[in-house]
Amino acid sequence: MNKADIAIIGTGPGGVSAAITAAQRGKSVLLFGSAELSPKMAKAEKIMNYPGFPSVKGADLAAALKAHLKDMNISVTEDKVTQVYDMGGKFTLQGASSAMYDAEALIIATGVVPTKLYAGEKELLGAGVSYCATCDAPLHRGKPVAVIADSPEEEGEVKYLSEVAEHVYFFPLYKDKPDMGGNISVLAEIPKEISAPTFSSRLLKTDKGEYDVSCVFILRRAIAADQLLPQLATENGHIVVDRQMCTNVKGVFACGDITGRPYQYVKAAGEGNVAALSAVEYISQKNDK
Amino acid sequence: MNKADIAIIGTGPGGVSAAITAAQRGKSVLLFGSAELSPKMAKAEKIMNYPGFPSVKGADLAAALKAHLKDMNISVTEDKVTQVYDMGGKFTLQGASSAMYDAEALIIATGVVPTKLYAGEKELLGAGVSYCATCDAPLHRGKPVAVIADSPEEEGEVKYLSEVAEHVYFFPLYKDKPDMGGNISVLAEIPKEISAPTFSSRLLKTDKGEYDVSCVFILRRAIAADQLLPQLATENGHIVVDRQMCTNVKGVFACGDITGRPYQYVKAAGEGNVAALSAVEYISQKNDK
Repeated sequence: MNKADIAIIGTGPGGVSAAITAAQRGKSVLLFGSAELSPKMAKAEKIMNYPGFPSVKGADLAAALKAHLKDMNISVTEDKVTQVYDMGGKFTLQGASSAMYDAEALIIATGVVPTKLYAGEKELLGAGVSYCATCDAPLHRGKPVAVIADSPEEEGEVKYLSEVAEHVYFFPLYKDKPDMGGNISVLAEIPKEISAPTFSSRLLKTDKGEYDVSCVFILRRAIAADQLLPQLATENGHIVVDRQMCTNVKGVFACGDITGRPYQYVKAAGEGNVAALSAVEYISQKNDK
Repeated sequence: MNKADIAIIGTGPGGVSAAITAAQRGKSVLLFGSAELSPKMAKAEKIMNYPGFPSVKGADLAAALKAHLKDMNISVTEDKVTQVYDMGGKFTLQGASSAMYDAEALIIATGVVPTKLYAGEKELLGAGVSYCATCDAPLHRGKPVAVIADSPEEEGEVKYLSEVAEHVYFFPLYKDKPDMGGNISVLAEIPKEISAPTFSSRLLKTDKGEYDVSCVFILRRAIAADQLLPQLATENGHIVVDRQMCTNVKGVFACGDITGRPYQYVKAAGEGNVAALSAVEYISQKNDK
């Protein structure tokens, strides 16, 4: 399914709650995230204050949420949304798989992005900086590229890039550096800054060296909300919302950690419920016109 | 226990969630409400969108919340708070039992009060209109009084009043009108308006008659928030809060249906969590000074 009433980005408790309430209200949903839902929740040793689950292991609460989604026939689309286009009355989402998705309303529940952006990243995005290997690799065929990744899940993308690019400078930011071979140099350096010395070359500076490439691919588990949809108002890395979870962009709602502190599971779940009902209301008013 | 860090009025999911998070953060709580928690929840045939409990009976969700309170050693104080006094730096709560309670911070989670106030009620409160039989009965010894009650649970109060007052005109607003006997007239009339023809007499007008009494006791399961604490800012019957669940009164927070739509269990639980953390933060800042 590439089309739904409501697209929801993120499978933490905010996104899951939004999907459940939207489905209950008879709306079709596209829920983007991981079938495992929230890695943060799954790893939590003990959660004390999600009402109804006294002293629960994160993995058990995640299993209960998964069972709830299953009970309501909601499936998770395991594609990473890398860009959102506001088409006026509908939204088109670009997936890392290169698939495109359409929705009438959008709920952002991506959680907080812990990393700071690299110097130059925001300015050069779409011009020699890319968040989507599948989408943009063909533009850099036969040329050297750099890849920065924050989780081993991205290694498939690195291999794919190595088949297209002349050479891949790979900067895994996680602990167990992989052994990739071929035309991939795995580098234990910390990326610092991206610049554009010429129209077609990009310079990636690290703590130890400089790499002259055609494109820098930055593959993060989560993408900063204002990179997804640049017109979104943010404050200190959080999306600005009102009490109905409306953002400054019509038809776009947000819930969970991305809307600000406290970073708490049940706060996120409560906000997901409100965001979904606001999205349902928005769609109904739009269609009444 | 008549003293706690945080007093929480209401045992719906908002109040319960607030109590759980406050206790987790090491604060003592006084949780006012019913050991049965929320009559509305207990009667819900099926709740579809409290994440983690797919398609759950209201009674089963209530049981899970009760188990969570028990697991954290939180007990419910079954007294009805009829008035709150802001003592500057602490709050004193008047219970219907005539007990008084002290707390450093207050969380209001009373739910929405479905009834409209009677004409004259707000103006005459504390002057011939009372919400607390136990507190005010002695003032009307040997005189006729009227009692309006919205649930059979108040019948004990009516009997107590009949022992003190000369006569009780009793207006039960629920279906099965009781047989009370003695000096109690049980009347199937609908109260409309309260006025003060003289300094010491109050006139209760119903759809069928007029009753000249010394005091009109109005015993509702819930009390409107701005009657509890008159300086509280409200809008259309809801307490005005910001995203941190702060009201306009320092040290007073609110959560759940009383803060506005949507009236949803998980929205209330999420807000309870935020209200509790804001109360904890407030107490910590106050004590730092």
